[in-house]
Amino acid sequence: MVWVRKDLLGLEELSREEIELILSTAESFKEVSTRDIKKVPALRGKTVVNLFYEPSTRTRVSFEVAAKRLSADVINIATETSSVKKGETLIDTGKNIQALKADIIVMRHNYSGAAVMLAKHLEISVVNAGDGWHEHPTQALLDIFTLKEKLGKIAGAHVSIVGDIAHSRVARSNVWGLTKLGAKVTVCAPQILIPLAIQDLGVKVTSDIGEALADADAVNVLRMQFERDSSEAFPQQIEYFKNFGLTRERLEKAKKNIIIMHPGPINRGIEMSSEIADGPQSVILEQVTNGIAVRMAALFLVAQAREKLGVGSTKR
Amino acid sequence: MVWVRKDLLGLEELSREEIELILSTAESFKEVSTRDIKKVPALRGKTVVNLFYEPSTRTRVSFEVAAKRLSADVINIATETSSVKKGETLIDTGKNIQALKADIIVMRHNYSGAAVMLAKHLEISVVNAGDGWHEHPTQALLDIFTLKEKLGKIAGAHVSIVGDIAHSRVARSNVWGLTKLGAKVTVCAPQILIPLAIQDLGVKVTSDIGEALADADAVNVLRMQFERDSSEAFPQQIEYFKNFGLTRERLEKAKKNIIIMHPGPINRGIEMSSEIADGPQSVILEQVTNGIAVRMAALFLVAQAREKLGVGSTKR
Amino acid sequence: MVWVRKDLLGLEELSREEIELILSTAESFKEVSTRDIKKVPALRGKTVVNLFYEPSTRTRVSFEVAAKRLSADVINIATETSSVKKGETLIDTGKNIQALKADIIVMRHNYSGAAVMLAKHLEISVVNAGDGWHEHPTQALLDIFTLKEKLGKIAGAHVSIVGDIAHSRVARSNVWGLTKLGAKVTVCAPQILIPLAIQDLGVKVTSDIGEALADADAVNVLRMQFERDSSEAFPQQIEYFKNFGLTRERLEKAKKNIIIMHPGPINRGIEMSSEIADGPQSVILEQVTNGIAVRMAALFLVAQAREKLGVGSTKR
Repeated sequence: MVWVRKDLLGLEELSREEIELILSTAESFKEVSTRDIKKVPALRGKTVVNLFYEPSTRTRVSFEVAAKRLSADVINIATETSSVKKGETLIDTGKNIQALKADIIVMRHNYSGAAVMLAKHLEISVVNAGDGWHEHPTQALLDIFTLKEKLGKIAGAHVSIVGDIAHSRVARSNVWGLTKLGAKVTVCAPQILIPLAIQDLGVKVTSDIGEALADADAVNVLRMQFERDSSEAFPQQIEYFKNFGLTRERLEKAKKNIIIMHPGPINRGIEMSSEIADGPQSVILEQVTNGIAVRMAALFLVAQAREKLGVGSTKR
Repeated sequence: MVWVRKDLLGLEELSREEIELILSTAESFKEVSTRDIKKVPALRGKTVVNLFYEPSTRTRVSFEVAAKRLSADVINIATETSSVKKGETLIDTGKNIQALKADIIVMRHNYSGAAVMLAKHLEISVVNAGDGWHEHPTQALLDIFTLKEKLGKIAGAHVSIVGDIAHSRVARSNVWGLTKLGAKVTVCAPQILIPLAIQDLGVKVTSDIGEALADADAVNVLRMQFERDSSEAFPQQIEYFKNFGLTRERLEKAKKNIIIMHPGPINRGIEMSSEIADGPQSVILEQVTNGIAVRMAALFLVAQAREKLGVGSTKR
Repeated sequence: MVWVRKDLLGLEELSREEIELILSTAESFKEVSTRDIKKVPALRGKTVVNLFYEPSTRTRVSFEVAAKRLSADVINIATETSSVKKGETLIDTGKNIQALKADIIVMRHNYSGAAVMLAKHLEISVVNAGDGWHEHPTQALLDIFTLKEKLGKIAGAHVSIVGDIAHSRVARSNVWGLTKLGAKVTVCAPQILIPLAIQDLGVKVTSDIGEALADADAVNVLRMQFERDSSEAFPQQIEYFKNFGLTRERLEKAKKNIIIMHPGPINRGIEMSSEIADGPQSVILEQVTNGIAVRMAALFLVAQAREKLGVGSTKR
C-alpha cells in the first residue's frame, strides 16, 4: 500500500487500506515525541501554511507542533489579519500561497466543502483541519488511533458517539472512519440534534444515553457548542447534563473498561462530570498526544505523494 | 558593484547599479525555492523582526517565507498586540528591538517616512515593507524583476501603471525604479487620483485607458482601495471598471504580448475581468513567486552590508 | 550548586545561591547574542509554548528570541485566539499543552498565583512571565543582572524603586531578589500606591523622591499604568511627574554615578524626562539586551532540571 493522494480532505473518500496506512505511519512517528530531541528531518526545507478562517488554537497548535517536529517551516495565517478582509477569494488566496512555493496548506474553514474546493484548484497539498459541519479527518484519525491502541483492533468494536451529531464534523468523520474499519457505531443525541438519514451511514441511532452506553467498548463525547445556538429548541446546559452527561452512575451500568474520549475542550459538568473526565477510563489527554503523531503522518504522506508522483499528477 | 547600504528604504535613493544588483541577487536566490529542500544557510543565527503597524498578510508572509528560506529566525509583531498600545514611540520600539540583538526590522507603517526615520536612529537594518503613500520598494522590485524576466530588459520598455496613482506607494516605487532603468512610464488614472506634479518624475500622464494601453509592453494595474475613501468624488466600482477596467475588448487594441501585472489582491470585475486576471498574459502569480526571491535578496544584502562594513559605519 | 527546580515561578521562593546560579548562567549565555551566528543547540528539539493571557509584546518577543537562540521550537498562544474563549480551565489548557509533549510553558496571566497553580498540576516546566501583581521573576533577574554588571556586586548596594509599588509584580520580585543578595532597598511612591506591610519585607519606605535618591546607587523606575485606574485618588500624570519624575535637577542631588533603570516601555515626561531616559546613566536598553541572556538561562535551567532528575521527581 502506497499513499498516492496529494490531499487529506476527509475519511469518506478514503479506503480502509488508506486509513490503516495513516494509522501505521502515525505509529512510527509517535516515538519521535518521546525522544530527547523531538525532531526528524522528514520535511526539512518544506513550507507548511496554517490557514485558519475560524479560530482554533488547539488544532492550529497541534499541526504547528507536528510540522515543526518534522523540521518544516511553518507560517500561520489567521483570518483576523488575512487579505480575506480585502475581499480576496479563497481560490485566489490558495493560488497565492501556492505561488510562494509552499508545500502544504492546512486549512480550517467555516464552510463545508471549502477544503475540497481549494484542493481541486491547487497542485500543492491541502490538509483539511475542519470544514463547516463536513469533516475533520485528523481529529477522527486520532480518535481511531487512540481506540486502536487501547482495544488492539477496531473491527468489531462498539463505539458510541454522544452529543450534537447534527452539527459535528468530528462525528461525521468518525462515522466514516470507524465503519470502514469494521466498528459498530451508535450515535446518541437529543432528537433535534440527530441529522436526517444518518442511519443510512450504517449507524444505530438513539436518544437514550443508557442504550448508547449499554454494550459500548468506547464512547466518544462531543463538545456541546452552546454558544452556537440560542434558540429555545436547543437544550439547556443543565438539562443536557441530566439527560446525556456522563456520570459515574451511568458508567456503572456500562462495560467495566469502557473508554471515554472527547475531542476537547471539555465543558466539565455538562458533557461529563469532572470525575469521569479525569478518571482512569478517560483517554482524553492521550488523544491530544496522539494528535501530534497522526498529524505528522498526514503531513508526511501528502508531501511524499507529491514528490513521488510529481506535482499535479497525483490521484485525487 | 558592492551593496553598502544597511537599509532598503525606497527606490528613489538607489542608483541604477544598486537596483540591478538586487535584481541579479534575486535571480540567484530564485532557484532555492525550486529545490527539494528550499533552504540556504545564508542568515542562520540572524533574527529578522516583522514589525507591522498595518495588517498585511501577503507582505508579511512573503517576508517570513523569504527569511526562513535563508534560515533566519523570524519574530512577528503586529500592532494589535504591540506596546504601541502602551504609548511607546516608534523609535523606542526600534531601539528595543535593536537591543534584543535583532539584525533586520522589516516594517510596514501607515505613515510616509516612518521607515526612513526609524533607519536613521538605528544601527541595525531596516527594510521598508510599505510606508504610507511613500514607497514599497520590494513590491516595485518584484514587479521589475518579473518584467525583466519576461521582456529580457527594462531599458526602452513601455510600462503603463493604471489605478489610484495618488495614494499608491507601489506606483511611486515603480516610477522611480522603472525610470532609473530606462523604461518609458505612463500613469493612467481618473483625474482625481493623479497626484500633482507627477509628470516631474518623467512620466506621461493620461486619464484615457486606451491611450495607456496603446503601445504598452506591460501594464501594472493597481488595487483600488475603495474601503479607504467613501467621499462622493471617489469613483464608484462599476463606473471604475467601465472606464479603466482591463477587459478583452480593451486588450485587443493593445500589443499582442502585453504583460498584465497586479500587486494583489485583485478586485475581480473592478480592476480587470477574471478572464484577463487568469489569462495567458497575466503574470500575477509569477510576481508572487518572484517576491520571495527579491525579498531574500533584500534581506541578504542589507545583512551582508552591516557585516562587511561593521555596524554603524555603513553608508546611509 | 545545581539547579533542581522544574519551574521558575518567583524570586520569593529562591535561595541566594539559586539566584546567583541563574545570574552566572545568564552571563555565559550573554556572549551568544554577540556572535555572528547567534544560536546554540542547547534546546534543539524542545518545544517552548508562550501562553499569554495578557498582551505583552516585549516579554513575549524576549522569550521567543531567547528560546530560538537556544534552538527550541516556539509556539505562541495568545488569549485572543485561545480556547479560553470556549471556557476551558487554565489547568485543562496546561494539561493539553503537556500532552503535546511540550517542554516549557512560559505564561503571562492576569491573576496572581496563576503560574504557581499551573506548575503544581503539571510535570512540564512553567516559567512565570508575570502573574497579576504577584511576581515577574525574569524581569527582576534581568534588573539585578544589569545592576551587578554595573556595580560589580549587589551586596551592600542601595537600590531605590520608584513608582506604583502597590500594583507592581516587578517591584515585588525586585524586592525579594535584591534583599536576598544583600542590597538595601528603598521603595518610593505616593502614599496611595504603597502596599500595606511592605516594610515587613525589609525595605525602607518613603514618599519623598529626594530621600529615595539621596544615597541610592541605582534607581529602578516603574512604569505608571495610568490606563489601569481612573479613580480620582490616582495621581494625575503631570502631578506625578512634578512629584516623582526623574529630572536632571533631582539627579544633581543624587550620587554622581547613579544608575537609572526602567522595565519599559517608558512614559517619557511622566516617569522621567527624555534627557534622563537617553542619558549616560540610563541602562534601560542594556536591560533589554540582558533580558535575552537571563531568559535563555531560565529556559535552559528548568529544562535541564527535568532531564537530570526525571519528569515529576524534581523539587518544587
